[in-house]
Amino acid sequence: MREEFRSDLIEIGRLLVSMAEAVRSAMSHATDSLLNADRAAAELVVARDAEVDALYRQVEEKIHAVLARQAPVAGDLRMVVSAMHIAADIERMGDLAEHVARTGLRRHPAPAVPQELVGVLRQMGNVADRLAAEMTMVLTSPNADRAADLETADDAMDTLHRQLFQALLGPGWPHGVEAAVDAALLGRYYERYADHAVNSGRHIVYLVTGEHASS
Amino acid sequence: MREEFRSDLIEIGRLLVSMAEAVRSAMSHATDSLLNADRAAAELVVARDAEVDALYRQVEEKIHAVLARQAPVAGDLRMVVSAMHIAADIERMGDLAEHVARTGLRRHPAPAVPQELVGVLRQMGNVADRLAAEMTMVLTSPNADRAADLETADDAMDTLHRQLFQALLGPGWPHGVEAAVDAALLGRYYERYADHAVNSGRHIVYLVTGEHASS
Repeated sequence: MREEFRSDLIEIGRLLVSMAEAVRSAMSHATDSLLNADRAAAELVVARDAEVDALYRQVEEKIHAVLARQAPVAGDLRMVVSAMHIAADIERMGDLAEHVARTGLRRHPAPAVPQELVGVLRQMGNVADRLAAEMTMVLTSPNADRAADLETADDAMDTLHRQLFQALLGPGWPHGVEAAVDAALLGRYYERYADHAVNSGRHIVYLVTGEHASS
Repeated sequence: MREEFRSDLIEIGRLLVSMAEAVRSAMSHATDSLLNADRAAAELVVARDAEVDALYRQVEEKIHAVLARQAPVAGDLRMVVSAMHIAADIERMGDLAEHVARTGLRRHPAPAVPQELVGVLRQMGNVADRLAAEMTMVLTSPNADRAADLETADDAMDTLHRQLFQALLGPGWPHGVEAAVDAALLGRYYERYADHAVNSGRHIVYLVTGEHASS
């Protein structure tokens, strides 16, 4: 029984890593497609979100099966419940990457992002990529210190988010309302993507230490 | 044991209903505070979100305790896992109500919403209230038909969301970029609030029927 439980957990961990890699790749391609007005790339991001959803469904089914069959307690149970929260966070990150790609598609063939915002959005994409990469590493070798690094990267995202708003709400914004609204929503998608990466990191801390991280 | 499990479930259900009532009230007051530029009301919404978070923590602890102590299986387990998802959705609805209130606070004493959008945002607030009310009813007497009603109300929210965007992206928008960005983000908060209400309804369907609702 114990042996079976361990192998179930390994399988769940593997699925979570696959999800994390998929949403990292999704946001990376979404950012590229957005900044290059690349329709084919954006459509691929949208289409591939179904794969993330399918992985999520697999994790849920696996978790239900483990809970039902093994009735884990204490630390074992904590791991299974944390995995459920982590899966939900990662699934949502996939949705947010899809939103970024769709924003580009809505304006295609025009670029959705004015030239002066390309830099800050590129940086937001880079921070998102770093967050997703760290989240994947934390999943493969759970470590409370590394999970805390996610919070630092999230601070970088918040700073970029403020910069973005300063640019589009500043007196010199020449691109009109539609471009500003797109940029504001894009900013929110990246910020939420980062929040979910941090949340999943917190669940890992909980997994490792049994203590809720302060928020 | 069985008797104890039932009383635990009743307690979890009671906490979920308290959460649902709290986030219903929060969004209702947030909308009022936003449309009336009522600073005190907005600050109360922000302050009271801590109560929702505290209830959420209680639900989580209770669920962990039930899983560990009772090791439920099959339908019992399904109920407990669904409760966890529902709690997470409702907690997020509280955050979104807080975002609405904070949007008003950021512009205070100026109104955050131009007069011509007051109508559509009032309607979005009303639909949000209806969704939260139906979610509470579904929680108190789980019923797949009523959960499906949530989807209908969500369609109404989507229609209003599109109306809002048409108004602020139309050629006659005279209020500048800042008001448009605020309105776009507000639209997203209401839409996400509705999505989470629908999600929790889907988890109830799953609870009642054991089948995932189509999305």
